[in-house]
Amino acid sequence: MSASRKENKSGFNLQQFLERSTVSVNTALDRFLPSEKTKPVTIHKAMRYSLFAGGKRMRPALVLASAQACDGRDSDAMPLACAVECIHTYSLIHDDLPAMDNDDFRRGKPTNHKVFGEGIAVLAGDALLTQAFEIATLSAGWPRYSHRDIILEIAKASGSLQLIAGQVADLEGEGKKTSAIQLKYIHERKTSALLCCSARLGGMSANCSATQLAALTSFGYHVGLAFQVIDDILDVTQTSEQLGKTAGKDTKAQKATYPSIVGLERSRKIAAELTGKAFDALKPFKGRAVALEALANYLLKRDR
Amino acid sequence: MSASRKENKSGFNLQQFLERSTVSVNTALDRFLPSEKTKPVTIHKAMRYSLFAGGKRMRPALVLASAQACDGRDSDAMPLACAVECIHTYSLIHDDLPAMDNDDFRRGKPTNHKVFGEGIAVLAGDALLTQAFEIATLSAGWPRYSHRDIILEIAKASGSLQLIAGQVADLEGEGKKTSAIQLKYIHERKTSALLCCSARLGGMSANCSATQLAALTSFGYHVGLAFQVIDDILDVTQTSEQLGKTAGKDTKAQKATYPSIVGLERSRKIAAELTGKAFDALKPFKGRAVALEALANYLLKRDR
Repeated sequence: MSASRKENKSGFNLQQFLERSTVSVNTALDRFLPSEKTKPVTIHKAMRYSLFAGGKRMRPALVLASAQACDGRDSDAMPLACAVECIHTYSLIHDDLPAMDNDDFRRGKPTNHKVFGEGIAVLAGDALLTQAFEIATLSAGWPRYSHRDIILEIAKASGSLQLIAGQVADLEGEGKKTSAIQLKYIHERKTSALLCCSARLGGMSANCSATQLAALTSFGYHVGLAFQVIDDILDVTQTSEQLGKTAGKDTKAQKATYPSIVGLERSRKIAAELTGKAFDALKPFKGRAVALEALANYLLKRDR
Repeated sequence: MSASRKENKSGFNLQQFLERSTVSVNTALDRFLPSEKTKPVTIHKAMRYSLFAGGKRMRPALVLASAQACDGRDSDAMPLACAVECIHTYSLIHDDLPAMDNDDFRRGKPTNHKVFGEGIAVLAGDALLTQAFEIATLSAGWPRYSHRDIILEIAKASGSLQLIAGQVADLEGEGKKTSAIQLKYIHERKTSALLCCSARLGGMSANCSATQLAALTSFGYHVGLAFQVIDDILDVTQTSEQLGKTAGKDTKAQKATYPSIVGLERSRKIAAELTGKAFDALKPFKGRAVALEALANYLLKRDR
């Protein structure tokens, strides 16, 4: 994890990669989704409002970067990149509802239910989840992986044993004492599951080998967990530095975090271990995973 | 539409068919869904609570009956029958939420959110929707229809242009003057879309011909619309007969219905036309669609 990793040997420009992938993902999403003029206009406006609310498109970028690592083409990976983003957006809309996290703002903009009302927000989430599966069928299909494999991959990562399990555990853990095991359980499901799925889908869209798929699985899993632990660490260090400035953060900090359970020192050690494992997972690609490596650097070597 | 149609020439026993299909659908659903003991237990309890709340399993019966009309096997149709029931149940859970229809009871039992809370109810709906797509991948696949076709069929029928469009139009129409065209738009999407999809999926699971698929499409569509118009008629005739007895029905009656818009006489004519078209659609099956015919009789020749 030396700093030299940041300057990629191949001169890979992550900034450019992210900008380009965001543009192409946005163009594809715009094409895949019914227009704002399609009846009933409210639901399509609501779906598009959250889908185009300035998300960083990290999951689609992970799909595309994983495809590239396996010599795949963007065009083959694009429907899957868009499907994953629809799943991510639906989960945010439902997560923000008053019955869940009750958030009024996301990325500085009013949340879906604040603009369209709770009923439409529930339906917009439902529609994006459904749309994800429709979009996933638009992929071409490949010798090693069928549409059945792709759909099963997405359904399992988003289902009641993964993404939704994470939401449930998070919801039920509020105000209760959380163990390190329980926190890992939540992070694995709320964050790692869909990131792992994104990496795998990218590989599958490139008709990757079983070895490559295993490598991408490990990469996605560890990047997801490391990202979350680092998020927890930054939340604490930021809070102590900026104490009194960001009102409301204190309440939020009552949520269990790695530092609050195992301490800051141990959290840093765990983050370093997970980050190491994420980079190790890329070894089988022998330097062809430049985009993935740069993405991991960006996600895991951050200070904010 | 003579009464003789009720006594099927082939001596088909609908009661027995429905009882048997309900048992086998329930057994399959129990097998497809994570057990109540699977972590997080709350979500699996909530999913199962609504899924096994005594639904009539009309949509699965339609899938199985359509498969039979095309000489298909129950075992091939079963995953699709279960997928459709998961979609139907998810839509009921979300429809009952306070932000939507705000219903406290369904089939005499407290609604999902009354038992598990709104947050879990939203997630249980999400999980059942996701589960539907997972279950649909468990079907075998057939020469004429791929898993891609099956997933696309379900996603389109449940998406923002069909089932969800119906919910949105219904939600937005509350307290407003509804035209006959608008009411048809709602019925087509809230009811016909999934019934039509059920009939088609049954045929597809039996590797049906294009002619058979077209017949099943027309049958499902017209049965759905006719069912809804008849529901509206019965609601009015019941209300006028039992006036003062069923308190709260008056408020509900403020919702637009066919009789309230085009009058009782014209509604009866429309219902008869639609019912006729549903039966006409079965002609290509030349007597092999005994289960479908009996099912249509049951749904459309009812007095309550």
